[in-house]
Amino acid sequence: MTIDLNSDLGEGFGAWRMGDDAALLDLVTSANIACGFHGGDPGIMRRTCEAAVARGVRIGAHVSYRDLAGFGRRAMSVPPAELADECLYQIGALAAFARAAGDRVRYVKPHGALYHAAAGDRALADAVVAATVAAGVPAVLGPPGSQLLAAAAAAGLEHYGEGFADRAYTPAGGLVARELPGSVLPLEAALAQAVSIATAGTATDVDGAPVPVAARSLCVHGDSPGAVDMARAIRDALIGNGIELRPFS
Amino acid sequence: MTIDLNSDLGEGFGAWRMGDDAALLDLVTSANIACGFHGGDPGIMRRTCEAAVARGVRIGAHVSYRDLAGFGRRAMSVPPAELADECLYQIGALAAFARAAGDRVRYVKPHGALYHAAAGDRALADAVVAATVAAGVPAVLGPPGSQLLAAAAAAGLEHYGEGFADRAYTPAGGLVARELPGSVLPLEAALAQAVSIATAGTATDVDGAPVPVAARSLCVHGDSPGAVDMARAIRDALIGNGIELRPFS
Amino acid sequence: MTIDLNSDLGEGFGAWRMGDDAALLDLVTSANIACGFHGGDPGIMRRTCEAAVARGVRIGAHVSYRDLAGFGRRAMSVPPAELADECLYQIGALAAFARAAGDRVRYVKPHGALYHAAAGDRALADAVVAATVAAGVPAVLGPPGSQLLAAAAAAGLEHYGEGFADRAYTPAGGLVARELPGSVLPLEAALAQAVSIATAGTATDVDGAPVPVAARSLCVHGDSPGAVDMARAIRDALIGNGIELRPFS
Amino acid sequence: MTIDLNSDLGEGFGAWRMGDDAALLDLVTSANIACGFHGGDPGIMRRTCEAAVARGVRIGAHVSYRDLAGFGRRAMSVPPAELADECLYQIGALAAFARAAGDRVRYVKPHGALYHAAAGDRALADAVVAATVAAGVPAVLGPPGSQLLAAAAAAGLEHYGEGFADRAYTPAGGLVARELPGSVLPLEAALAQAVSIATAGTATDVDGAPVPVAARSLCVHGDSPGAVDMARAIRDALIGNGIELRPFS
Repeated sequence: MTIDLNSDLGEGFGAWRMGDDAALLDLVTSANIACGFHGGDPGIMRRTCEAAVARGVRIGAHVSYRDLAGFGRRAMSVPPAELADECLYQIGALAAFARAAGDRVRYVKPHGALYHAAAGDRALADAVVAATVAAGVPAVLGPPGSQLLAAAAAAGLEHYGEGFADRAYTPAGGLVARELPGSVLPLEAALAQAVSIATAGTATDVDGAPVPVAARSLCVHGDSPGAVDMARAIRDALIGNGIELRPFS
Repeated sequence: MTIDLNSDLGEGFGAWRMGDDAALLDLVTSANIACGFHGGDPGIMRRTCEAAVARGVRIGAHVSYRDLAGFGRRAMSVPPAELADECLYQIGALAAFARAAGDRVRYVKPHGALYHAAAGDRALADAVVAATVAAGVPAVLGPPGSQLLAAAAAAGLEHYGEGFADRAYTPAGGLVARELPGSVLPLEAALAQAVSIATAGTATDVDGAPVPVAARSLCVHGDSPGAVDMARAIRDALIGNGIELRPFS
Repeated sequence: MTIDLNSDLGEGFGAWRMGDDAALLDLVTSANIACGFHGGDPGIMRRTCEAAVARGVRIGAHVSYRDLAGFGRRAMSVPPAELADECLYQIGALAAFARAAGDRVRYVKPHGALYHAAAGDRALADAVVAATVAAGVPAVLGPPGSQLLAAAAAAGLEHYGEGFADRAYTPAGGLVARELPGSVLPLEAALAQAVSIATAGTATDVDGAPVPVAARSLCVHGDSPGAVDMARAIRDALIGNGIELRPFS
Repeated sequence: MTIDLNSDLGEGFGAWRMGDDAALLDLVTSANIACGFHGGDPGIMRRTCEAAVARGVRIGAHVSYRDLAGFGRRAMSVPPAELADECLYQIGALAAFARAAGDRVRYVKPHGALYHAAAGDRALADAVVAATVAAGVPAVLGPPGSQLLAAAAAAGLEHYGEGFADRAYTPAGGLVARELPGSVLPLEAALAQAVSIATAGTATDVDGAPVPVAARSLCVHGDSPGAVDMARAIRDALIGNGIELRPFS
């Protein structure tokens, strides 16, 4: 039994910081590194790549819509061909830092609004995948059952689903919207869900029934002290239950 | 006798155009392609790389300070380490499009204010060169006798000087400042200077004396109809004098 | 019988030009001036305001989503409160240049994707209007019958509809989508439509039937030599038919 | 005996935070509010203006070079006329939020690299002052004895010097460069210097001799918990020594 832990990293910009990258890099096995379109700048990208390689953490390109002011969280109607170009630009930039640090970009994961758009829209998913293929990156990380993973499969790429330990799932296997009550699980429930996803491939939905979550990776966050503690507790719970933390890539 | 013709290309951004890229690409042997920091966007970068490869024109990374509003023409005090990161980001992004088009980035040439800064300041030159090395790009193009070419030589990179057909030279081998009278040569003088640089390695300075210009490439512009005509005339004059147009890289 | 002619102006950025502002300013009575979010920079804004005031052309704030790379043409899901702030920022910036030039901002017209969004979505329309009110600007220009004009009316602002001489109308009074055949009228039809809208308040729809177009202003473009010629012909046709060109504000 | 306390505020951008604005706004009498060029976005500007007005804190425009990536700390060679336009744009944008909050922009203070440039270069100082005049703002805040204040005086503007409680002064009245040892004073020395500047108009230079510091305002920072504590201690020391905190504008 193995699972990967991934986290969004390198999301500062210029003088601004975001999250506790150092703490997270000691916990995760895969780093989704911002590429400058929603966060991240060249210096941060270099340092994050170096720190990831030093710890054996895999480098993924966390590609985004071009929206620094909105942190990539605002949906944008970008035509697929243009989106593919914007993704390839970002992957290429990160690849240079990954190589300089002694490794390479192992996978692509879309960020924020693009994550949601590429999960549900096959043309946008195909655009992200086309950029991934053009960049020579072998894998895509995204929501299980999504158009993104279907597009990656169709293109012959490796494709991995990710799950969330601390988010409630719907009976259909989706996440309960963040603004709804009960969408974020308390610590104990999150630890149980992490172990359940890793060992049984299921979460417990809001009605208490098991729901399949085909996740080869769990996503953890580091944007608050509590978040880092949660990530550490998830890691400890996984290891304590005999699950090996191992990158998917 | 051979010489290269290079030009700054792909300098539009979004809805904005700059220069007649298509006309220039039919004339030059090397394309300095903007990488998004002073001009250029992912779609333009892709299309310019594809058009260059289709014509056998070599791809160079035209790296710049991050200054879209000033088109990279404003000097900025960027610390060398930060500059190296900013250059590597740009080269990496362009490299992805070059590879997708079937070639690779063959050289780096700084743009605008960075061109001047890296020509005269060894620490900045070293930063540009460090990024070039980190990106695995084999050559640098810049002013003959500059700190930039010295830094490239010290790092074991290929390094090529470029000359200007239509700009008057000082007795010291520099360019007469653009705002001074006589700084831009009329057509006949420019054609003669192009041939002279290519065949004898000399220009004629403002006092009428020969001045050495160690240029393996001549830079031509395309930002006005007259400029394209000038570029075409230079190309024709070179070929008419038995000089072979051949990329340096 | 009077009508206003408006045009989008000041849409260059930095080294990039867009359209023939000087030619247009001699033709129109109202200038929708870009405020820096889709085009326009501080220098362009100052010069465009000065040129408008020198000709008695009214200054309008052409507010946009923050999207230089997409020229404000890409729909973005910006929450209304955030949109109101982004619009107020732009109107305030332009107001400083309008005042420095001896006038003030007379109206607000959204640009591109925001124009379409605010036409159909009352919450976004209310956000644009709230910014207009907060800036002390008295009027809004937009599509006849739109949510934008309804929101302006509800807020007690002046509100003016605009029509298009060279675009085909649907029987419902909307514009035929630009990608459809017949969406752009030939010159003679456009001149007739301009006069018809100004004198009778009607256009001829795609089926040849009259359709009401409640327009106090006609929008003309200047982004190609042909467009300027068209704008001039429309102006001449209006004057030739005894229609006075007069700003609505 | 009165003095003003000013601080740089509203310097976040999008999802990124910078400093503890709420804590600072309870301590200072003047707020230098970022205008979007080095930090600050429309939402932050609105909220900071509202919070300042609610506390009777005066609003100043903290104008900067256009350099989000460098937080306005990198020197840029911006021609004076262009700089004036860039400053007017920023002041105008902030003025809209200040008015919407029920007040107006009371003064202008340049930020970062522009602060230093405008202090020493009269042409740049004149550009900042020209924008201040064009915006109808009555006052400028800057280094005592600087070209900036001289330019403001020549233009008939109010002009106020600012001092630093926690920075060591040179015998010439300048600040000891931040990278030198002893440049930042320990708490007790800073409190003494604050009181000395406010009551006697002198600091103690690095040699222990009194040096005149003609400051109507003291600048405090909030970018770390320690900084806020320092600001609070300075405020308490001033009040405890019978000095009234009162805005200069």
